[in-house]
This record gives sequence, structure tokens and C-alpha cells, in this order.
Amino acid sequence: DVVGGGVDALLLAKVALQYGPTDGVPELKAQIVKLLREEEGINASPNNILTTTASQQALDIVGRTFIDPSDPVLVELPSYIGGLQVFNSYGAKLMGIKADDHGMLIDDLEAKLSKLRQEEEHYKFVYIVPDFQNPSGVTLTGERRRELIKLSERYNVLLIEDSPYRQVRFEGEAPPMLYKLDSTHNVISLFTFSKTLAPGLRLGFILADERIIQKMAILKQSLDLCTSSLNQLLAAEFLKSGIMREHIAGVKSLYRARKDAMLEALERYMPEGVTWTRPEGGLFLWVRLPEHMNADELFFEAIKENVAYVIGSAFHCDGGGQNTMRLNFSYPT
Amino acid sequence: DVVGGGVDALLLAKVALQYGPTDGVPELKAQIVKLLREEEGINASPNNILTTTASQQALDIVGRTFIDPSDPVLVELPSYIGGLQVFNSYGAKLMGIKADDHGMLIDDLEAKLSKLRQEEEHYKFVYIVPDFQNPSGVTLTGERRRELIKLSERYNVLLIEDSPYRQVRFEGEAPPMLYKLDSTHNVISLFTFSKTLAPGLRLGFILADERIIQKMAILKQSLDLCTSSLNQLLAAEFLKSGIMREHIAGVKSLYRARKDAMLEALERYMPEGVTWTRPEGGLFLWVRLPEHMNADELFFEAIKENVAYVIGSAFHCDGGGQNTMRLNFSYPT
Repeated sequence: DVVGGGVDALLLAKVALQYGPTDGVPELKAQIVKLLREEEGINASPNNILTTTASQQALDIVGRTFIDPSDPVLVELPSYIGGLQVFNSYGAKLMGIKADDHGMLIDDLEAKLSKLRQEEEHYKFVYIVPDFQNPSGVTLTGERRRELIKLSERYNVLLIEDSPYRQVRFEGEAPPMLYKLDSTHNVISLFTFSKTLAPGLRLGFILADERIIQKMAILKQSLDLCTSSLNQLLAAEFLKSGIMREHIAGVKSLYRARKDAMLEALERYMPEGVTWTRPEGGLFLWVRLPEHMNADELFFEAIKENVAYVIGSAFHCDGGGQNTMRLNFSYPT
Repeated sequence: DVVGGGVDALLLAKVALQYGPTDGVPELKAQIVKLLREEEGINASPNNILTTTASQQALDIVGRTFIDPSDPVLVELPSYIGGLQVFNSYGAKLMGIKADDHGMLIDDLEAKLSKLRQEEEHYKFVYIVPDFQNPSGVTLTGERRRELIKLSERYNVLLIEDSPYRQVRFEGEAPPMLYKLDSTHNVISLFTFSKTLAPGLRLGFILADERIIQKMAILKQSLDLCTSSLNQLLAAEFLKSGIMREHIAGVKSLYRARKDAMLEALERYMPEGVTWTRPEGGLFLWVRLPEHMNADELFFEAIKENVAYVIGSAFHCDGGGQNTMRLNFSYPT
């Protein structure tokens, strides 16, 4: 009964139900600083952190802070649909960067950045989900991460590192976070507790240079004043008590088994010419049908009874991807 | 120990920590429908309600839904600073409407609306805090409410009724809500549980025509997907159990005593020519110095030790109000 006990104690403290600081409750920020140091080797100060009403609000804050109508925004092909929708809502001109099973193609990004620079376009940021990407399940390699950081310096472009699944790695070794590799304050990282604690808490945070955090905190004030103090203190308690670590361990072993089962089913049932990604974590994998094929009735027949899928074109800002689909292996079969 | 017990029960229900519907958790909506019927005689359906991350998000949703840059928005003189800031952030051209101790001057509003119509300006809404206004403490009379509703029909202008303090009435009789008087779906009402339950819950709701609610729910999805299910279920529990009613009763008697003490102090210490409002509820009252006076050192000397104040000009979109100030009588002296 840790939760019930925790809530009572917190209520007694008379903090949980009051307005909190816009940038976040200090108790939670302290736990986040600790988490970043222990898990990622990142030395952050509380001033580098803005707690948010989960990562959807973080994306909205990024969009509203940086996008003026018709600004180019560079995104992966495919990319997270929630991000694309937010950037579209602020009038961004989305430009797709090619990706393979090791993440974004850095050469293609450089070609696009170089063209934008020649055209004197007002580009601001590259949006990337480097770990177990939604939708593809792909992780950007360490080498490409270093190249990406160099590019961000050369072209003076911000990198938005959206990292909701990073803690849910069930095999292989994690390359360092982009934020960790960056030494020029070009990286803004978005985190959420939706996958590691509970979506219903609506809790996440932004990690960035102090001046950016200050600017975003002023904006957040007009969005919702502050994120629920009660939920922030609950999360701080979950982090402190080790409940989060236990919870993640359980999630990992469950998802790993489901991923393996799905890969096995794909091996068994997929016809020649169909390929798929082999994620080392997260929730999703990505299936590519032969180029000439479209979402085919027979194909869906074969899998529709035990997997959830989304048509891949929904994740392509360029209208492509008709022969692809996202499978979610985290659902029970 | 209702809270601790409630939380445990809710957690067991396994709803509290999951994603909820963007428009709000059904259990809370049902309680809101009941509250509106019992307290305000308003017959709403759950489809008329969008739960929000408190009223600041409701204001942001209103701004983003209705304001295009340079649209005129009509506000009271003075008006709530949080509203003014949001509307400014969307590029609104704020137009001040005069008000007295009985609220907005309907004639002045009509003159402004008539001028805007002649100039073919794209006006969309009037923003008004009709009950114990922040900052003035003034309540719009029943008669003016009816005139306002007629104007909104004649000029086809939406009324944004921001009502965070209405439940905190400690004397006198409440005129009906604008939403209740309206029969043409021209009123959008904003509520919060910050004053009646706890600010830390970050919980409020918007009451409006179903089509408007649908549009706003789509927008809210890109803002934060949904408001915390945990907090919504807690609030539903507080409403159902009668805790909220008890809590409000306590707040009322406390604030009434503090308001009376402040009025008494003003009577005793204020020099000739200074006037103030006599609120029947809420948190604030409004002091007017003689026209030629400005925020004066000596004046502040007299009161600075036991009252909190904000300079009145901050609440005026037209740069006026230098001789006014807002006092908050809810703070302990």
C-alpha cells in the first residue's frame, strides 16, 4: 500500500494540492537530476528542467516556441504522428529525411540543410526520436549520433530529441543520448513518465539549456500555469522509492516476450519480399511490403486477429510509405 | 481518511493511471452535469463539457480556437490579467469596455460593437468575469446580464463567461449565469476547481455548445492529449462524497470574515476621496484613489503590513488605472 500511504503523507505536507512553481516541483526535479546522472551520465541542474503535462505538452511548447508559419522543420521518414500534427498546427513546412534500419540518414539531412541554407530559409530544428522510434522501432547508432551533433553545430540547427521509450530497452547496449553528446546547447530533450510510470499521471519534462527553459516556462505559464503538484509529488515518491525501477523491469520482460512472439509469427507467416525491423526496446516494429504492394486484404487477414497495426503512410510527411505499417507488440495477443 | 481510501479504490479500478478520453473522464462529467443542474439550474449533457487542465488551459483553448492575429477582442476595464496575456499571445487587438460597481457598461459595449460592425472588423468574442471579478470584486447585475445576452444575439458575438469564483458567494443573491440565460449557443463558460477543491489538482472545465466542444477537444488532443485521469477521478470522488460542498462552506465563512475585516480597516484608515468595492464573494476588492493620485508611498505605508496588493494598471488593456489597486482579502492577516 505504498501509493495510499504516499498520498496521505503528501497531503499532510500540504504541498500536493497547492499551486506549484511553473517550472516544476523541486522534489521531482531533484529526483530527475539524480535519474539523469545515474542512468545517462548527464550532469543537469534543476534549472535545465521544465516539468510538463506529459510529452504532448512538451511537443506543443516546442512548436509554439520555435515555429513561425511556413518555417521548415526537418523530420524523419517515417516520424511520430503526434509530433507531425503539432508542427503542422503551427504552420510548419515539414521536410522528410530518409532513414534506414539504423535511423536517420545523416547524408540526406546534410543535403537538405545545405539546400535550406543556400535558399536562406529560416530553418530552426530537426525533430528526431532516436530510441526505438515510434513508428519504426529503429534506434539511431552511436556513430550517426556523433555525426548529427557535428551537423547541428555546423548548420546551427537545434535538435529536438524526443525520448519516450529509451528506458524501455530490453536488449543490446544503449548509445549515449544526443543531449549527452552535445556541448553547444543545441539539443532539447523531451521525456515522459507515461511509459515508465503511468500515462494517467500526465507527466513529463524538457531538458535543455537554462535560457531555453526560462523562455519555455514563461510560455507554459499561459498554457496551464503549472502541472499538477499532486502528480509531481507522486512521481517523485515513485522515483525515490524504487517503484519506477521495479515497474520498468516488469514492463521490459513482458514486452521482450511479446516482441519475440511477434517476430516469430512474422517469420512464420510473412511471404517472400516482406521485411521488418527488430527493435531492441520500445513498443513498435515496422513492416515493409514489396514496393509495388499496398495495404493488402489478404495480408491483413493473416495477422489481424492478434496484432494491432496502423497504416504507415500516416507517419510520412511526404505522402509516401503506402507499402508500410506499424505493429504494436506491447498489446496482449 | 477519505482521500487515502479514495485513491486506493481508484487505483484498484485501474482507470486512474491510464490515458483517458480527451474530452474528460465520464465519472467526472456525470458529477459536473449534476452540479450544474443542482447549483445553477442548467441542463447540460456530458457532450457540452470538456474537462481541462484548469482554467488557464481553458483560456488558452479559447484563444487558440477563436483568435487570428489582429482580431479585436472585447474585455472589461479592468479585466483578469491571465486572460489578457493569453489573448495578447495570440495577437488579439484588445478593446477595453468601461465598467462600474455593477459590472460592464452595456451601452459602452454596444457602442464598440456597432463601430466594429461598421468597420467590418472580424470581432469574435467578449471576455467577461461576471461574478466577483478578478480584479475588481464586482458582480454583473441580472438586468445587465439579460441586456448582454440580447446584444450577443444582435451582434452575433460569442460571450466567454469566465467563472472561477462563482461558488464562493458569501452574501447576497446570485444572478443567473450567462450560460443559463442564453438560448442561442452564444455563451462559452469556463469553470475551475482551483478555488473550490484545490489548485494543485489542475482541473477545470468548459461548458459550451456540443459543436464547439468537439472542435476544442480536437485542439486539446494536440495540447496535452488528456487531463490526468487520476485527478479527474479524485475530483469526481470529492464531488460525490460532499467533500467539495463542505470545503466551500469553510472557505466562505473564512473569506467573509477576512473581507469584513479588510472593509473595516479601509473605513478606518483611508483618507477622503478614496473609494472601494464591496464584494459579495470571491477573493478580491478594488480600491480607487482620487484621479490625480498615483500609487503613493505614504498610502502603501499604511497598509503594506497586512494586505497583499497589485497595481491596478496591470489589469487595464488601455494603459489606464494608475490610480487603482487590487487587494486580496483571502490571505491571512
